[in-house]
Amino acid sequence: MKSLVLEEKLKLSLRDFPIEREETLGPRDVRIKLHTVGICGSDVHYYTHGGAGIFQVRAPMILGHEASGTVIEAGSEVSTLKVGDRVCMEPGIPDPNSRATRLGLYNVDPAVRFWATPPVHGVLRPTVVHPENFTFKLPDNVSFAEAAMVEPLAVGVHAATKAQVKPGDVALVIGAGPIGLVTALAALAAGCAKVFVSDIDDSKLELAAKLGTITPVNVSRQDLTQEILTATDGWGVEIVFECAGSPRAAEAVFDALCPAGRVVFIGVQMHPIAYDVGKAMVREARVEHVFRYAHVFPRCVAMLSSGAIDVKPLITRTFGFEESVRAFEIAASAPKGEVKMQIELPQ
Amino acid sequence: MKSLVLEEKLKLSLRDFPIEREETLGPRDVRIKLHTVGICGSDVHYYTHGGAGIFQVRAPMILGHEASGTVIEAGSEVSTLKVGDRVCMEPGIPDPNSRATRLGLYNVDPAVRFWATPPVHGVLRPTVVHPENFTFKLPDNVSFAEAAMVEPLAVGVHAATKAQVKPGDVALVIGAGPIGLVTALAALAAGCAKVFVSDIDDSKLELAAKLGTITPVNVSRQDLTQEILTATDGWGVEIVFECAGSPRAAEAVFDALCPAGRVVFIGVQMHPIAYDVGKAMVREARVEHVFRYAHVFPRCVAMLSSGAIDVKPLITRTFGFEESVRAFEIAASAPKGEVKMQIELPQ
Amino acid sequence: MKSLVLEEKLKLSLRDFPIEREETLGPRDVRIKLHTVGICGSDVHYYTHGGAGIFQVRAPMILGHEASGTVIEAGSEVSTLKVGDRVCMEPGIPDPNSRATRLGLYNVDPAVRFWATPPVHGVLRPTVVHPENFTFKLPDNVSFAEAAMVEPLAVGVHAATKAQVKPGDVALVIGAGPIGLVTALAALAAGCAKVFVSDIDDSKLELAAKLGTITPVNVSRQDLTQEILTATDGWGVEIVFECAGSPRAAEAVFDALCPAGRVVFIGVQMHPIAYDVGKAMVREARVEHVFRYAHVFPRCVAMLSSGAIDVKPLITRTFGFEESVRAFEIAASAPKGEVKMQIELPQ
Amino acid sequence: MKSLVLEEKLKLSLRDFPIEREETLGPRDVRIKLHTVGICGSDVHYYTHGGAGIFQVRAPMILGHEASGTVIEAGSEVSTLKVGDRVCMEPGIPDPNSRATRLGLYNVDPAVRFWATPPVHGVLRPTVVHPENFTFKLPDNVSFAEAAMVEPLAVGVHAATKAQVKPGDVALVIGAGPIGLVTALAALAAGCAKVFVSDIDDSKLELAAKLGTITPVNVSRQDLTQEILTATDGWGVEIVFECAGSPRAAEAVFDALCPAGRVVFIGVQMHPIAYDVGKAMVREARVEHVFRYAHVFPRCVAMLSSGAIDVKPLITRTFGFEESVRAFEIAASAPKGEVKMQIELPQ
Repeated sequence: MKSLVLEEKLKLSLRDFPIEREETLGPRDVRIKLHTVGICGSDVHYYTHGGAGIFQVRAPMILGHEASGTVIEAGSEVSTLKVGDRVCMEPGIPDPNSRATRLGLYNVDPAVRFWATPPVHGVLRPTVVHPENFTFKLPDNVSFAEAAMVEPLAVGVHAATKAQVKPGDVALVIGAGPIGLVTALAALAAGCAKVFVSDIDDSKLELAAKLGTITPVNVSRQDLTQEILTATDGWGVEIVFECAGSPRAAEAVFDALCPAGRVVFIGVQMHPIAYDVGKAMVREARVEHVFRYAHVFPRCVAMLSSGAIDVKPLITRTFGFEESVRAFEIAASAPKGEVKMQIELPQ
Repeated sequence: MKSLVLEEKLKLSLRDFPIEREETLGPRDVRIKLHTVGICGSDVHYYTHGGAGIFQVRAPMILGHEASGTVIEAGSEVSTLKVGDRVCMEPGIPDPNSRATRLGLYNVDPAVRFWATPPVHGVLRPTVVHPENFTFKLPDNVSFAEAAMVEPLAVGVHAATKAQVKPGDVALVIGAGPIGLVTALAALAAGCAKVFVSDIDDSKLELAAKLGTITPVNVSRQDLTQEILTATDGWGVEIVFECAGSPRAAEAVFDALCPAGRVVFIGVQMHPIAYDVGKAMVREARVEHVFRYAHVFPRCVAMLSSGAIDVKPLITRTFGFEESVRAFEIAASAPKGEVKMQIELPQ
Repeated sequence: MKSLVLEEKLKLSLRDFPIEREETLGPRDVRIKLHTVGICGSDVHYYTHGGAGIFQVRAPMILGHEASGTVIEAGSEVSTLKVGDRVCMEPGIPDPNSRATRLGLYNVDPAVRFWATPPVHGVLRPTVVHPENFTFKLPDNVSFAEAAMVEPLAVGVHAATKAQVKPGDVALVIGAGPIGLVTALAALAAGCAKVFVSDIDDSKLELAAKLGTITPVNVSRQDLTQEILTATDGWGVEIVFECAGSPRAAEAVFDALCPAGRVVFIGVQMHPIAYDVGKAMVREARVEHVFRYAHVFPRCVAMLSSGAIDVKPLITRTFGFEESVRAFEIAASAPKGEVKMQIELPQ
Repeated sequence: MKSLVLEEKLKLSLRDFPIEREETLGPRDVRIKLHTVGICGSDVHYYTHGGAGIFQVRAPMILGHEASGTVIEAGSEVSTLKVGDRVCMEPGIPDPNSRATRLGLYNVDPAVRFWATPPVHGVLRPTVVHPENFTFKLPDNVSFAEAAMVEPLAVGVHAATKAQVKPGDVALVIGAGPIGLVTALAALAAGCAKVFVSDIDDSKLELAAKLGTITPVNVSRQDLTQEILTATDGWGVEIVFECAGSPRAAEAVFDALCPAGRVVFIGVQMHPIAYDVGKAMVREARVEHVFRYAHVFPRCVAMLSSGAIDVKPLITRTFGFEESVRAFEIAASAPKGEVKMQIELPQ
């Protein structure tokens, strides 16, 4: 009954952790045996840096928040789930009484408690107690591995929803990392006729090109704006999704944007970016900013089940739970060709 | 150099028609040699009834408005097209100075002139002069037959756009005729995870079921509302597209609609329908009504080219131009199993 | 310590009622001493008919749901209110765990419990316990009488919000009763340059004409469509608010609507209406349906306080609590010239 | 028959100019005798700097683009205007065949020709020929002076429309210059319950405070964010309108913005600003950028006529045409207390 614990910066251990014995099941909660947990860039960042911004690891913390598993106990008022159900879980739990939550905007509630964000523990551990409202049953044709991809996919689907994609739009996704690729998949599923994906890593761009009607652009040797303007008869793309967190890329988001186009900022920017208001004005650009997601987990599950979105090509490596520490070491080395690495817990 | 002329109700002839010699090419026009023209229900209705509502055939009129062809002459100011370009054409030309057109709503401009709508001639004829603005170049991988499907497809894509489909929505399309099926394809391309299609004709529903993640419902023996509520855990569908023009179906559009769901009326209703305001209120339903389409032809072409939408399964029969009269006789007999019949002109 | 109890159809009594002693204060609740309660058409309908649709009065029920008062006790976790605060209250309490509520759509949650809707008691009584989340503090310059108008005003403001009024729109409000008039006020406050109000009662129309840039139209002797088309150069109004609940008016909502105009159904329709899909289509009308309101009470309070909306002219008569039974008798007689009658409770 | 000609940087002359004799009247044009022309900051900038960005004054150019006047001749196809009509005019004429114009977005058509933007002449001259489509008849109760305010007002109304103001929103307008003040007026007319206006000039803030429910904040001695958060119980404002063109102000637009709030950039920024993506993300802010306006002139005229907006307090000084050069000298001195200065032409 071990957990993967970040003891402090750069020190991980696989050990018994008392939290398991402490969690009590409320009437609207379920207890879940974890099956698969994906490794997210934020997990790796906590491991390598010991924190991020205001969130610093000040006490040992269990990592992991992209998760699927099986219900092993259900509270007395739970009505939509039962023991034995295969599920995936939304890792953030908001305050139900906050003004934002009541407006339906629970993701921007400042009081949200999110797995593996200090001081809240993650789920690289045997079991977890979670509210029914944030636990979603899986259809038979969605695997635990795919289900553990719902969390990152939700970011892309939320971004595509905010962008209000119209059928036949053309989009640009900046960045071919995991979030860039799920965003490209979401953009295509949401109606884009074509998506450009830009990056500087050919191996990622090769993978991107196989995912659908995607035109890869390697910005280390191609002029992105020129490529897009040529391909769109000078009009530009209807939507730009910034997923790289690169200040240089962020500064250029308006260059190939069409009149009345939309930009969605998804990638985390460590510092203020240089933002050209004039370029945004002459296009009357609309800029959206997303923060995680809200209300999209069941939509993602439905799209995986229907085949509208296929995330399997993004899962490039799977580790056993006992290999967790090594998995994080590998992840921290920024390995070429890896998109999403996952850890399977003992069943 | 013959045209297919509706001389009067139930009387078609294939004969030389003076319009060819009269059309002059303006500086922003192109002259197009027609290649493929689809037969629409409205063409058939003019043939069998001699008119529709305020549009009565009072003089011989050429039929046909779902068309593709090749540019054979270009006006002096035309910049986006050249001789030899393969194209499809939007059949309605609005008054550029009307208030609706200037707002971008040219499809609801009352002054629009639309092919094969009296007194405007259609395009089952050798050539036509058309404005560059309403003529769209085809990529190499879109055939003339697919291109002649853009006109009906545009109805479905416009409806899906108006419905503001969000990724993962579930929709119901009422009616499995050509418009119902293109709407189902458009809804899936626009992000629906799943679409129910209802009809009373098993052969159409069988075809529908092959087009994607579509659940066919034969309302002659299944309870549509119950099927949907069961499949959606009692929530209902986010969108209902009414494509049947059936008053009974139209009266039931709110029954399986979820809170804040949207209804889109697409099918023509000959008479006022019985509309239950109370059912719409308790759901705060939004109801949209579409009239043809605006600004979607190039989007449809792009989606055919990218593979986001495949209309080929809907083209069930093709006739040579010399068989045109027989083609209309067959179409008028409401043949089982036929979805879209097309006519190819001599090249 | 008396309450106004509807014992059964047409039988009201002012008597002690046990509910007062039963209500316990939860940690997030406040106890409120009632000050002013408006008489709503639904209260009168329960009095005269003993029920409405599925809601039948099967046991004695306290009436009244348009209310203001003073906090006299606050639960242990209440943070935004304190004893002595003057407040108004939203009369419906949804299930916080329903899918609709979590999406922010609590008004369409079927499980909502609403004052004076059987079997839930209203507030024509000395005190009530209510959740902090649905109780709103009043600024000093908003009187108890105005605050008791927030409930009906919220219907109009919610409708204007749903209509997405743009600055300079022209609207038509059908019906000059209390809901029609608050909707006209809300439409003007939301940016309408001008509002037509139609009715058959000259005294109501006279009052309407004094409320702002409102053109009254008496449909018993004027042609409403013609008046609007003439005044708008043939374009029509951008928005129609149907507040009369009249089937004839509801059938004509599209006649004077401009292209891409919006219709909002607010008035209760007892039976299905005859709905002309074709007229809606040629305009690409959008039709919205509202059910009460959500998230607008604090907005209404703010607009009363700022002077953006003045509801005082709508309060035409005030009764003491001991006159309550007579007040309902008068209300039931549909008195000419009365818009909103209110009852003041002993303090 | 003189015009006000900017001969070169800092050199203005009032002299006869050949353009008058050259303008021919097309069938859909009107000839207008100018009455009142407002002085815009851009006019002054051309005077003092000889250009702005890519627009450099390379030949003598007539200034002025905020104008009203009287129709003195009408083209053969003009139907909505006649000789003697009092009118105001939209100063930009787009290419009717551009893609942006056809979508209804004519203001972002790069080919738009705009008065007093090199090489297009302005209208501080006796007459001008203008398209009927961009000329708007004035009601009797709108004066020439108010009508010449429609152009700047249109900027504010367009911004408020883009912001999708909902009734009861609270907004912040940064900058109390002419554009800031018309934006504050537009925001209130569009439904804001309250508007904060920030500036560093007490005389402008004093004027602002008289225009409606406006809270002035002098940022040279008050903490704007703190003022707003205190006044809104920590929630923040729903909308921020940046009208100052100040980089420091622009960098702080998210500080007092509520969750899901909207920011509209209106003020011209000479250089890229430092933009904090992270602050925008945690709020899921939506940022809009406006470029002039589209389709709002008749709406502004209607709101002036109805009294929904009163621009008269903003017109602080009026000059005769013969004083034009001096008027520009005064305007260039950034006089305290002046908001809008206008010039009246001889009639």
